[in-house]
Amino acid sequence: MFKINDNYLKLPGSYLFSTIAKKVAAFKEANPDKDVISLGIGDVTQPLAPAVIDALHKAVDEMSRAETFHGYAPDLGYEFLRSAIVEDDYKARGVEIALDEVFVSDGAKSDSGNIVDIFSQDNVIAVTDPVYPVYVDSNAMSGKTGDYLKDKECWSNVVYMPCTAENDFVPALPERTPDIIYICCPNNPTGTTLNKDQLQKWVDYANEKKAVIIYDAAYEAYISEADVPHSIYECDNAKTCAIEMRSFSKNAGFTGTRLGFTVIPKELKSGDVSLNSLWARRHGTKFNGAPYIIQRAGEAVYSEAGKAQTKEQIAYYMNNAKVIREGLQGMGYTVFGGINAPYIWLQTPDGMKSWDFFDNLLEKANVVGTPGSGFGPSGEGYFRLTAFGSAENTKKALERIKNL
Amino acid sequence: MFKINDNYLKLPGSYLFSTIAKKVAAFKEANPDKDVISLGIGDVTQPLAPAVIDALHKAVDEMSRAETFHGYAPDLGYEFLRSAIVEDDYKARGVEIALDEVFVSDGAKSDSGNIVDIFSQDNVIAVTDPVYPVYVDSNAMSGKTGDYLKDKECWSNVVYMPCTAENDFVPALPERTPDIIYICCPNNPTGTTLNKDQLQKWVDYANEKKAVIIYDAAYEAYISEADVPHSIYECDNAKTCAIEMRSFSKNAGFTGTRLGFTVIPKELKSGDVSLNSLWARRHGTKFNGAPYIIQRAGEAVYSEAGKAQTKEQIAYYMNNAKVIREGLQGMGYTVFGGINAPYIWLQTPDGMKSWDFFDNLLEKANVVGTPGSGFGPSGEGYFRLTAFGSAENTKKALERIKNL
Repeated sequence: MFKINDNYLKLPGSYLFSTIAKKVAAFKEANPDKDVISLGIGDVTQPLAPAVIDALHKAVDEMSRAETFHGYAPDLGYEFLRSAIVEDDYKARGVEIALDEVFVSDGAKSDSGNIVDIFSQDNVIAVTDPVYPVYVDSNAMSGKTGDYLKDKECWSNVVYMPCTAENDFVPALPERTPDIIYICCPNNPTGTTLNKDQLQKWVDYANEKKAVIIYDAAYEAYISEADVPHSIYECDNAKTCAIEMRSFSKNAGFTGTRLGFTVIPKELKSGDVSLNSLWARRHGTKFNGAPYIIQRAGEAVYSEAGKAQTKEQIAYYMNNAKVIREGLQGMGYTVFGGINAPYIWLQTPDGMKSWDFFDNLLEKANVVGTPGSGFGPSGEGYFRLTAFGSAENTKKALERIKNL
Repeated sequence: MFKINDNYLKLPGSYLFSTIAKKVAAFKEANPDKDVISLGIGDVTQPLAPAVIDALHKAVDEMSRAETFHGYAPDLGYEFLRSAIVEDDYKARGVEIALDEVFVSDGAKSDSGNIVDIFSQDNVIAVTDPVYPVYVDSNAMSGKTGDYLKDKECWSNVVYMPCTAENDFVPALPERTPDIIYICCPNNPTGTTLNKDQLQKWVDYANEKKAVIIYDAAYEAYISEADVPHSIYECDNAKTCAIEMRSFSKNAGFTGTRLGFTVIPKELKSGDVSLNSLWARRHGTKFNGAPYIIQRAGEAVYSEAGKAQTKEQIAYYMNNAKVIREGLQGMGYTVFGGINAPYIWLQTPDGMKSWDFFDNLLEKANVVGTPGSGFGPSGEGYFRLTAFGSAENTKKALERIKNL
């Protein structure tokens, strides 16, 4: 008789954004006349850059002729894309990464969920709290998080590192030593960052404790301040302790186009075994590459035209961030983020519960955001708005919140 | 201190096709003047069908305008694609599958590797032997296969069901009862099939033992004989025991375009828990959809033009299969497959070891195939050739083998 993985049964509710999608769908069905604006899920709205569109058309044409047709991609991804990554994302910032330390994938969500595969059951993970739900959920699914404590809304065997207004959203080194530390910087959901000195402390701590840092840099393109590192490998000795994940979703609008990559330096080892070799084995066995045409689209992001065009997109979204941030401040809200990230993290008024604020905003302003508590216990009393809407909708949403 | 998943260390060698790719690369480097023909990995060579190309261009154009841009896809895949699947792959064959029983993915390799996630450690798997390596390797990685016995070239806790010329490649019901049974039909690597009565026996057995069948139907488009089922759900009561996986790689040449799907009927349950809900949770948490433009390409495969054009491609490859099969028979080889599948499974002459035959063929004929033993112990003494080359190369390869 087959047995299911009953770790799945411990998971509370469904995936956060699935829950929100269902709530919004129910509201829309009951109120078909309402014009709902979503500043909820971090999904982009601007079209792909012209350079990316051109590359896609060209690659599609290649697929139409036998001489230029592409079948299975190389295991790690096409070299044209990995070279561009190595040059532009790393070498240009003084970081040396080898071609075979880059693994091209269908996105950072898959990678950050699948990375659990190469670690044993008995690792203790640490996460900033609040946190992008995939880190904890994927570890829960593989039985690494203990039991879910319903009253405390947290897992028994996870080290939570609160990030709130009180500590300026900078996590303190934990009392209990973790084995795997998830850091997302610029942070989703708070929109805050660590500067280079603050991140170096974590790198030193991980090396000292022989812990591994899973560093999610999906939002690095939004960094505007000089002392915020774009890669964890800008810190000294990070290659012996850190895995870095990147995405094309937010820097180039690939949420529906799907492309990302993970860097695992060969120096990162457990005894004699490099994590690079384990991930290579997983990648080769349980994945078959991102589509050729999408990898060509990714390459175009690094072209001169692609860089200029995606920079404009980011400026567009960051202008939205400014509108939200300053608009909310003008209404008396306390807000964070929005300087180096497309997320604004607001404190709910009068200590209102996050989900109550969600319902209120949906019902009265027809604006969708994300309840802070959905990201972890320390997110209670906070709420996330994203800058990924259109400029018009963003302004409209702010007007509606003002009239609440 | 972080701990790795040391199940990975038990895996013998690297993924089969990575090993072959390395061997071939080394040969080419040492022999730059040789024209190597690959009938090895099951990778297609014909360009995408015009209807698919048109759909791709159209979808790319949609991504270039804000009004028609697509961000994150729905969790299960776009309804336009799932509807086409439900209608054409199932309803047209008398099988009722609900829209939310279809999960669109980036391919059958990912799905067949990732499906282990929803099962507990203590399931015993059964595989036909020889078998597509991903089933066993992915279970080994998650600790479900015991130890690798080097002398026997098999895992201690896997039920192997030999499929050889002796039993006409029809696996016998095993003595030890398995919990999860992998069946690939038409079969990779042997190119043989089960007819409906033979498959019904497996469905009945699985229902009786409360085992689950993971049915890989990646090659169903190549079926030419009337009594071979295209879907396991054509058998009675299969919905309570079977998961079916499909791919666009072989029926429409999507090996480098990446699209597939998995069907999990809601009736398939462990106690109260449906596997459909577990896979939905995994899909929502650790995957973010196939690209919009690729899902549109998949939809085009089901258009009238797409059907006619992909049918032609399949006829082209099946003509190659005929050339290989009859050519080899003419040389005195004993061959199997090639009637309902694009694979020809030959017996090596004079009981030569599979890898020796591989080396011989590569060095003397400059033709790449796949050693049977790479697919499991009962594959020893066999060798796989694929029909996915160009017609010209296929003929040339046969000439060279003739002159060996």
